[in-house]
Amino acid sequence: MDKYMYFDYMLNSKSVAIIGASSNPEKIGYIIMKNFVSSGFNGELYPVNIKEEGEILGYKAYKSVLDIKKDIDLAVIAIPAQVVPSVLEECGKANVKSVIVISGGFSEVGNIDLQQKLVDISKEYNIPLLGPNCLGVMNQKERINTLFLPTFKMDTPKIGGVSFATQSGAVGSSVLDMIADEGFGLSKFISYGNAADLDECDILNYLGQDKDTKSVLFYLEGVRRGREFMEIATKVAKIKPIIAIKGGATSAGSQAAHSHTASLAGSYEAYVAMFKQTGIIQAKSLDELLDFAKIFEAEPLAKGNRVAIITNGGGTGVLASDAVYANGMIFPELNEESKAKLREAMPAIVNIRMPLDMAGDADEKRFGDALEIISNDSNVDAIIVICLFQTPGADSKVAEMLIRYNSMMKKPMVVVSAGGTYTKIHRSIMENSGVPVYPSPERAARALAMLINYSKFKNAKIEER
Amino acid sequence: MDKYMYFDYMLNSKSVAIIGASSNPEKIGYIIMKNFVSSGFNGELYPVNIKEEGEILGYKAYKSVLDIKKDIDLAVIAIPAQVVPSVLEECGKANVKSVIVISGGFSEVGNIDLQQKLVDISKEYNIPLLGPNCLGVMNQKERINTLFLPTFKMDTPKIGGVSFATQSGAVGSSVLDMIADEGFGLSKFISYGNAADLDECDILNYLGQDKDTKSVLFYLEGVRRGREFMEIATKVAKIKPIIAIKGGATSAGSQAAHSHTASLAGSYEAYVAMFKQTGIIQAKSLDELLDFAKIFEAEPLAKGNRVAIITNGGGTGVLASDAVYANGMIFPELNEESKAKLREAMPAIVNIRMPLDMAGDADEKRFGDALEIISNDSNVDAIIVICLFQTPGADSKVAEMLIRYNSMMKKPMVVVSAGGTYTKIHRSIMENSGVPVYPSPERAARALAMLINYSKFKNAKIEER
Repeated sequence: MDKYMYFDYMLNSKSVAIIGASSNPEKIGYIIMKNFVSSGFNGELYPVNIKEEGEILGYKAYKSVLDIKKDIDLAVIAIPAQVVPSVLEECGKANVKSVIVISGGFSEVGNIDLQQKLVDISKEYNIPLLGPNCLGVMNQKERINTLFLPTFKMDTPKIGGVSFATQSGAVGSSVLDMIADEGFGLSKFISYGNAADLDECDILNYLGQDKDTKSVLFYLEGVRRGREFMEIATKVAKIKPIIAIKGGATSAGSQAAHSHTASLAGSYEAYVAMFKQTGIIQAKSLDELLDFAKIFEAEPLAKGNRVAIITNGGGTGVLASDAVYANGMIFPELNEESKAKLREAMPAIVNIRMPLDMAGDADEKRFGDALEIISNDSNVDAIIVICLFQTPGADSKVAEMLIRYNSMMKKPMVVVSAGGTYTKIHRSIMENSGVPVYPSPERAARALAMLINYSKFKNAKIEER
Repeated sequence: MDKYMYFDYMLNSKSVAIIGASSNPEKIGYIIMKNFVSSGFNGELYPVNIKEEGEILGYKAYKSVLDIKKDIDLAVIAIPAQVVPSVLEECGKANVKSVIVISGGFSEVGNIDLQQKLVDISKEYNIPLLGPNCLGVMNQKERINTLFLPTFKMDTPKIGGVSFATQSGAVGSSVLDMIADEGFGLSKFISYGNAADLDECDILNYLGQDKDTKSVLFYLEGVRRGREFMEIATKVAKIKPIIAIKGGATSAGSQAAHSHTASLAGSYEAYVAMFKQTGIIQAKSLDELLDFAKIFEAEPLAKGNRVAIITNGGGTGVLASDAVYANGMIFPELNEESKAKLREAMPAIVNIRMPLDMAGDADEKRFGDALEIISNDSNVDAIIVICLFQTPGADSKVAEMLIRYNSMMKKPMVVVSAGGTYTKIHRSIMENSGVPVYPSPERAARALAMLINYSKFKNAKIEER
């Protein structure tokens, strides 16, 4: 079987057996079953529980996967660790196409032999296995969701182009929640835990080929097959951005990683070098991981590093100017025609220079005029718009104008809006309409610089061909 | 008059004349007047408007400040720039104790002579002047608020210990809004714009002496009297933390600053050196400014750099461990008694080591037990608690437990909660009860490291005496 197909059976599954499914709301198997039922999953669902009879959540219950006697693309296993090997063996005999082991209690707590049994069985039956000790997968488009977390505690991302693979379930669930909260969309989610069988290489290979995946996020602790990973990453990074955060950058973190997914973190310097060499974009914090993903989801690549700033607040414009230059970008020299048009469109007190400080009474007309003129200037590669909603001029009409220009422009644009309740409402309005909004000029500039660097990298790779 | 008194007349004013007060809701003078009236200010209010008669918002209107013939602590001037000098002269003749000029249109747009006139008149009458081109001041305790921004667009901070001085009104209003949004409290706000008369030195001198001010935030573009500022900062930093962000760190930013408040930004390196030498804490982004202010508002100083991590998420614990070591802190070696107690209190799968990964089903009991034991360990100087609310065990009972321990503990504690709607609700609950919560382990660790460094600095200064 082509390894690509492994994940296809999981993420585009037409028939799912949930082993450990239960009618008892306190069981993990109940939550997983419930999520499939309430998501409107329209494939076949087979709850399996050795102790239950009749129906589970309205579906016929089976004592064993062997009793189903139908094609099964995916078996999700959520039962005590000790009984997983025998159930996995049954999956093999039932010709199940792929398996996710949610259960923990393997190498991460020292049960190395028990985990090895899973590997042996999966090899014997040629059955691809994700986990154990993981959250499994999510594919909103196909309504596949094996997460056992209480749904009311987590926002669900809309369908989009970001795919996210993570060794840690905790980082996984909080990042998913933040992706949803910041209004950008998810394609695939893969939590791979102890990586007993399928590992980083398999996942990156799959997401690299997946057409719905526009960018790949990775939370990595250790990479088992370093050389293969580099080869795959080198190929994928030329096609789509890969953004990775490395857990275990220090020896303290690396020991923590080992006791948590039994991964060997290895030398941080080696990872940093590997990221650089392959073209993987390194996020140095959870904040950066989200900030970077957000801009790729929303914006096109840039042709260069000439960044215009439009602002309705002077001091924030100063900080943004600092951040532009500190991150290796520069101001454009607007062409004469743009300058003349701006001079006409702006009130007399506005200096026609960068940053363009349009003053606190700038309304949708002034923002629109500035964006129209500056976005069409051939000397401008990207735009940072600072819209402070505390000002008399800024309101939802301005937000609407920014949404309009963001969707029309073929250059990247980011928005900075710093503040409380009123600001956050408008930030959400814009984010939900595909505008990447940041709460500080420094974060916006850093994300934009990263996009510009990746654009340069990708263009160079295209020219090399 | 002692310079300290200048600000006292403004910030603790018992009688305020609002020159330019108006019945027309579109005028800045209307908004300022309205804010005083609706805040419940209980001093005397005198609206002054050469064109209006009778009453303004229920208060007797005066044609000139000279007609009032009562003691006036503060005159707030919001009228066109050209007529400010003559009105300021009237304030001098009426023996007004202090003046804030909100109006713009002075040196920031090249009208240097007009600004010089203000300086000359204020000197002639010995009348301290804040501004021009500023938002003025806020003191929630005394219900003093000269900001002309629409109140519905900005959250109002509660009363607290942070005082914030800013050259830029835009940075001022958005930071105020964020201070309110993040639930920590404000003492004084001073927006000083062009600093024609009162400047950074006067402000820092005042806030350094002000008993209600526990920490000082500064957004600085340029400092006019460098040597004096250093002397004052050196004194104040030993007593309370000063956190400053420098606008104009690059030549692009510095030019932007000049065209916005006419300030001369000067060499960034000189500022960085000055911050280090005096003990001013430098925030390198707006995010850091808020993050640092938040921890000082909520937490005591630390005795050392041994930081325990308690977590309900493995991967986030790994990232936090990295951030602890990357920021110059270390793990404590828990004493034997604590270890024995933890081994008894935690389930068998929990490794008694740092970070303490209590697993995803950790509830308020487990968080409480861990905090009780670890906060009492003499080898622990500070605690990072990671509480991911996506987990089955975390809910408002856990939040309540964290609030309880935060208020009881005499060591600094910070919380990390990353996520969307459900998480943000709990973040607010904790923040409003005085717990500093951060959305990522990296931001929490950086703020804590800064607190620990300042603690060390301050202790050294105390010993030097």
